[in-house]
Amino acid sequence: MNSDKPFVLDFDLLSGLCKSERVKPKYRYASDMRDQFLDKNAADMAIKAGNPLLYEFYGLDLPERDNVLQFGTTKIYPGKIGSEYYMTKGHFHTLLDTSEIYYCLRGHGIMMMETPEGDVDYREMLPGDAIYVPGRWAHRSINTGATPFVMFFVYRADAGHDYGTIEEKGFRRLVVEKNGKPVVTQNPKWL
Amino acid sequence: MNSDKPFVLDFDLLSGLCKSERVKPKYRYASDMRDQFLDKNAADMAIKAGNPLLYEFYGLDLPERDNVLQFGTTKIYPGKIGSEYYMTKGHFHTLLDTSEIYYCLRGHGIMMMETPEGDVDYREMLPGDAIYVPGRWAHRSINTGATPFVMFFVYRADAGHDYGTIEEKGFRRLVVEKNGKPVVTQNPKWL
Repeated sequence: MNSDKPFVLDFDLLSGLCKSERVKPKYRYASDMRDQFLDKNAADMAIKAGNPLLYEFYGLDLPERDNVLQFGTTKIYPGKIGSEYYMTKGHFHTLLDTSEIYYCLRGHGIMMMETPEGDVDYREMLPGDAIYVPGRWAHRSINTGATPFVMFFVYRADAGHDYGTIEEKGFRRLVVEKNGKPVVTQNPKWL
Repeated sequence: MNSDKPFVLDFDLLSGLCKSERVKPKYRYASDMRDQFLDKNAADMAIKAGNPLLYEFYGLDLPERDNVLQFGTTKIYPGKIGSEYYMTKGHFHTLLDTSEIYYCLRGHGIMMMETPEGDVDYREMLPGDAIYVPGRWAHRSINTGATPFVMFFVYRADAGHDYGTIEEKGFRRLVVEKNGKPVVTQNPKWL
């Protein structure tokens, strides 16, 4: 994709989806995220019972340069694996100190964030909320609502994705349903 | 404003406005934009008749660093000065080759763009349209509809604003109403 010429892509404000053939959605099913959930039995049951789609997002094919901005949408479906809500894998940026902006279009969720040093922050996101995720903060989007959780995002195209400790241990905090409400708990892998 | 910690700001998806006291809107009235419109008599009449608000936008007070992203909304009201639609002043980035993303939330308009060398491009924007404005392209938002034209924007916080030739001569193309429709015409100052 040429980053020297202007171009327009339509990301539907309600569905979050893009119909352009220039943009390919990426899909993450329960099987792709099995090891990210604490309850592996629940994950295996979900995979056997149809392997639901947890989220999808768009990545453009722009040059990874510091003067280019990468953008698109992420759409997380409602649901749980065990008591944990559907969520994205989450990542640090390879260029660790680069920031990212998410703008919530629809739904209800939480942006879970942490630094390599163990600082933790999380914010509720509702339609119209824009969050500034600073450099150094890994970030994961979690759908705590009953409808799709859709956000528009922008980051520097050279930022890169680094899964670091996330693939082995996940984030330091989990978001689980208790008595019908989302509750933030300690991830026992980090105890 | 601290760019090392996450923060959330609410930009209403319908009005485009932010109620947070941490963010101050900037207002551009007809009197601020008088010299940008071709028809100075019409501009003076509008100023005398109440000096209408043409647009407002939000600027955060983030450090101007290359790893920080600046974001907010711009809201252009419907109307015309003479036959020219209400529009933003438009700018190059001081770091000329840095890009910007606009995501249309509401209304109907045109993103007018040009390079210092005289390349011209313009794109219609409708709700859900995201535009990639590459580095080197000056950009101006023009409301060609009958309702407010609202966009969410993101750019590198060190990009800066350079009005360059725009303050003297404007953009190479104008968008004017002819027979009730927007038409792109040559700016006579650039002939």
